[in-house]
Amino acid sequence: MVIMAEVSSSPTFQPVLERIAAEIENTPGRGRPADYIPALAARDPRRFGMAVAEPDGTVYGVGDWRQPFSAQSITKVFTLALVLAGQGDPLWEHVGREPSGNAFNSLVQLEYENGIPRNPFINAGALVVTDRLQAQTGDAVGALLGFLRAESGNTHLAINKDIAASESAHGDRNAALGHFMAAYGNIVNPVPVLLDQYFHQCSIEASCADLALATGFLARHGIRADGTRLLTRSQAKQINAIMLTCGTYDAAGEFAYRVGLPGKSGVGGGIIAVVPGRCTLCVWSPGLDERGNSVAGVAALERFTTLTGLSVF
Amino acid sequence: MVIMAEVSSSPTFQPVLERIAAEIENTPGRGRPADYIPALAARDPRRFGMAVAEPDGTVYGVGDWRQPFSAQSITKVFTLALVLAGQGDPLWEHVGREPSGNAFNSLVQLEYENGIPRNPFINAGALVVTDRLQAQTGDAVGALLGFLRAESGNTHLAINKDIAASESAHGDRNAALGHFMAAYGNIVNPVPVLLDQYFHQCSIEASCADLALATGFLARHGIRADGTRLLTRSQAKQINAIMLTCGTYDAAGEFAYRVGLPGKSGVGGGIIAVVPGRCTLCVWSPGLDERGNSVAGVAALERFTTLTGLSVF
Amino acid sequence: MVIMAEVSSSPTFQPVLERIAAEIENTPGRGRPADYIPALAARDPRRFGMAVAEPDGTVYGVGDWRQPFSAQSITKVFTLALVLAGQGDPLWEHVGREPSGNAFNSLVQLEYENGIPRNPFINAGALVVTDRLQAQTGDAVGALLGFLRAESGNTHLAINKDIAASESAHGDRNAALGHFMAAYGNIVNPVPVLLDQYFHQCSIEASCADLALATGFLARHGIRADGTRLLTRSQAKQINAIMLTCGTYDAAGEFAYRVGLPGKSGVGGGIIAVVPGRCTLCVWSPGLDERGNSVAGVAALERFTTLTGLSVF
Amino acid sequence: MVIMAEVSSSPTFQPVLERIAAEIENTPGRGRPADYIPALAARDPRRFGMAVAEPDGTVYGVGDWRQPFSAQSITKVFTLALVLAGQGDPLWEHVGREPSGNAFNSLVQLEYENGIPRNPFINAGALVVTDRLQAQTGDAVGALLGFLRAESGNTHLAINKDIAASESAHGDRNAALGHFMAAYGNIVNPVPVLLDQYFHQCSIEASCADLALATGFLARHGIRADGTRLLTRSQAKQINAIMLTCGTYDAAGEFAYRVGLPGKSGVGGGIIAVVPGRCTLCVWSPGLDERGNSVAGVAALERFTTLTGLSVF
Repeated sequence: MVIMAEVSSSPTFQPVLERIAAEIENTPGRGRPADYIPALAARDPRRFGMAVAEPDGTVYGVGDWRQPFSAQSITKVFTLALVLAGQGDPLWEHVGREPSGNAFNSLVQLEYENGIPRNPFINAGALVVTDRLQAQTGDAVGALLGFLRAESGNTHLAINKDIAASESAHGDRNAALGHFMAAYGNIVNPVPVLLDQYFHQCSIEASCADLALATGFLARHGIRADGTRLLTRSQAKQINAIMLTCGTYDAAGEFAYRVGLPGKSGVGGGIIAVVPGRCTLCVWSPGLDERGNSVAGVAALERFTTLTGLSVF
Repeated sequence: MVIMAEVSSSPTFQPVLERIAAEIENTPGRGRPADYIPALAARDPRRFGMAVAEPDGTVYGVGDWRQPFSAQSITKVFTLALVLAGQGDPLWEHVGREPSGNAFNSLVQLEYENGIPRNPFINAGALVVTDRLQAQTGDAVGALLGFLRAESGNTHLAINKDIAASESAHGDRNAALGHFMAAYGNIVNPVPVLLDQYFHQCSIEASCADLALATGFLARHGIRADGTRLLTRSQAKQINAIMLTCGTYDAAGEFAYRVGLPGKSGVGGGIIAVVPGRCTLCVWSPGLDERGNSVAGVAALERFTTLTGLSVF
Repeated sequence: MVIMAEVSSSPTFQPVLERIAAEIENTPGRGRPADYIPALAARDPRRFGMAVAEPDGTVYGVGDWRQPFSAQSITKVFTLALVLAGQGDPLWEHVGREPSGNAFNSLVQLEYENGIPRNPFINAGALVVTDRLQAQTGDAVGALLGFLRAESGNTHLAINKDIAASESAHGDRNAALGHFMAAYGNIVNPVPVLLDQYFHQCSIEASCADLALATGFLARHGIRADGTRLLTRSQAKQINAIMLTCGTYDAAGEFAYRVGLPGKSGVGGGIIAVVPGRCTLCVWSPGLDERGNSVAGVAALERFTTLTGLSVF
Repeated sequence: MVIMAEVSSSPTFQPVLERIAAEIENTPGRGRPADYIPALAARDPRRFGMAVAEPDGTVYGVGDWRQPFSAQSITKVFTLALVLAGQGDPLWEHVGREPSGNAFNSLVQLEYENGIPRNPFINAGALVVTDRLQAQTGDAVGALLGFLRAESGNTHLAINKDIAASESAHGDRNAALGHFMAAYGNIVNPVPVLLDQYFHQCSIEASCADLALATGFLARHGIRADGTRLLTRSQAKQINAIMLTCGTYDAAGEFAYRVGLPGKSGVGGGIIAVVPGRCTLCVWSPGLDERGNSVAGVAALERFTTLTGLSVF
């Protein structure tokens, strides 16, 4: 059902995308790419792409919108959806739904709260979700890749093995989180198995077009691209709410104010966002601000909601 | 310009309010009134009132909607608006805009972040805002009362002196917060002066009608009841975003999911909420859940957004 | 019974004191006086005095050993002794006896442990002790002054009112601690009353001779200068143990290693120390290291235990 | 040079040991064995043994003093000595020497202090020491076993493989600590290698006689059983000071007061202690108090210092 629309055929979102791209082009200051692993650090911070997908699968784009990039934490939205679909509310006994109020990898709060992470989008919470997806499917990354390929219609969507290896080599903090929660009995799989799944999950590469399309189920209130139901309407609303309050690390408040949409960022420079019932977006530019969000990405989304009036506020 | 509409004259919101009130009436379990001061603990948890105000000042109500109750933390929205109006962005050097992720009166995070509270709605942040309003006006509570009376059209709106005295007598934790921030140089006034203002501010009594009307400037994108501008459009949006991400203590994520509106609760059992451009709401019922939010109040707002489709998601 | 021995009459400790003073004289680097209040900051860091008192009240001294200085936290030892003498073990329900492992004024641990400070020598713990002494006597500072005058034989020993006023003016952090513990029900008196007592207690001025003599009860296993019993042998041992493990802020481990005696320092630059059964010491030099202990004072005590072999290790 | 004296030949410490054993025999309440791994939980809490070794290697004992038990954290003293001997002061850039003031496995303080543990006797600090011993020797456990065998004269001293496997199976919290410090760059070896060494180190079994003899270098101011120097006098003093302030988990203050000797406990129920220049002790009884120290062991040491007057206070 996915219709990869030609740019020229779009009457609706194409002009606003092009206007935004032109404005971004003239904006100085792009932040710096994530530098904790070399493969991410090498990205040119002036790259920029943006795509909008309508619920029927029509997709518009501008700039590097077909260029695959490292999805990183954006994947946390999809694993969350797959686990909610498969297991429902019992998930919330293992991870909370409230903002964390600390740097996204802090252990303090986790100790304070007995190994139950605050929400599924901080690293600890994402590890719990991936752990449960692994228990649910026996192959968390395979299930995730299958979902993303089906929703995006891009069967070539894949893992960047070099980035996965690099994540693993620099993964001590996530390993600490995993073992720490295991000590509280909040991890099902052996921690090394979980970490391997998690680092591969983060290393999936996809384009703005792919991710805008894959996010479509949140604009369609839980319905997948093929018309089947993944989530209840209520579950879709729940994920949107968590994205709005927890989706952009320690800048959720500012993102809510500036952009006013449920969104989820990744340190690869991508951000997805949802206008429930109307469309989904994905923007990519590798330069990050000090809180880990794409500088040009946030700016572009802010312009989008300003120009279209599609903010929630 | 405030038009206190008779209940019978309302074609729009009155039926939904009455349906909600009927449903709430049949709901068992109301939580428990705040018990840290006797004056609040004595309230009957089955009391219930709800009001909706339209941008033009038309107001609808049901149940105890004209009954004054202790506004408590709801007042934090109005002091924030008055300080933003008077001082603008420099306020954000003294208080953040991000969710706190801890119990609403925790000192740990404050120490971690050198005396700068996470947001204006945790107690520490509200003390900073009141401190700045006191510096701005020389009489923070007077300024606040004046504003609330003007916006609500209720010139009798006043402080409950017994509750103020009781707050002061049980105010050690807020005193600790005030002195602690003063030690970091983040308080302008003498701490006892600030605390006195703060405890009086919390002890203002107003009805659902009063508070729904007083919140109107947030639905009108910054315009006061008399048509003058209090805040820029951007500042009004900013307050709405902070309400959505930080307005209900440690339950902002759940409130966003269930209600999906910018809201602010108080331990007196009141909650205000905003549908930007459309209306403002205030609901009151004294029984609280374990996180300090009115049980029937949250339920009523959830029903409102479900029945009217006016959620942001 | 106090015998203020003439320097010349001492066969035992006088030579070692003079040797230490000579060595200290030639030592470069003295640290910096405490600068949080002007009255302390003005002190010349090259001042140095040291006194040793034998159990029979004979006292030896060198340098500025008769010069009064601000006793500050050294007074915490004496208030602890008076409360233990008056109330016994129930005190330990309100304050612990274990090292704190944090900076001496941290609130984090206090919140973690529900308002019960770790030990009587961190500020929070000292506030609890002074609070209980106030409840016990109705005049904590009067009781303390009376004790110090009796033990030292110096009836002129007094409070420096300027320093007390300055402590109060810069006392927000202690005020925060007091109110915070009051919120947990761990403070008996009104917090402002307690703070006033506490700031006056810290502002007592005494000389090395005075304080070495006043500490004598710890060398005499609980017996006062007049031969009456203040503490049981066990209580005296208890205070010595707390001094060894908690007496020098966040440097107790290093002090134990270098000096190897129960000791208590103050930010006025004084340090008292105990050789149980043998003697008590007080050294003074205003320059502090980064953890708040007198640089020359620690060095002098280290030389003393090395030269006399009187360390506990 | 080790002389395993027959019990009957001892004029000095044998009577006091027998008196203590008789008193302990009549003492009700022994606490509970550690239950985090089955091999430890199975121990009979009424087992009791105690040994005293003189600097010349003469050893006295009573009860189960020749019965091997799980040394656990007692081994931390010996790895610390071997690393100080091999690397000297640079060790202190990687681990502190101050009391921790928290439960012995807390992560909060470690995060607060950037991956540098407070002292070598909390688990995090012991991991750092073992990591450095592994780097120093290529076989940390082998080096440790060699040292213990040489000092005790017991060539059969060995690891309990079942306990090591059980430690590893329940080792998530230590794994978290290891990875967390690795993330701060404070671990040299691969974390799994380090953990394997650490769990084997903890699983060494030795008797009271073995451990009292092996501790002898601390009573001999750094000299090994064969007369060669392991540590400088200053380093030996340093270890004694750390034992006194940090050797008994979160009960160092109470241990200092009750026993008044440098000591180190393990969850296997053993405690070693040092009377510098005079003797070393080891006591064993598997029942623990709520802070992880042997109930009968602390009681026996307290009686020893009371009866002999050999306390440091």
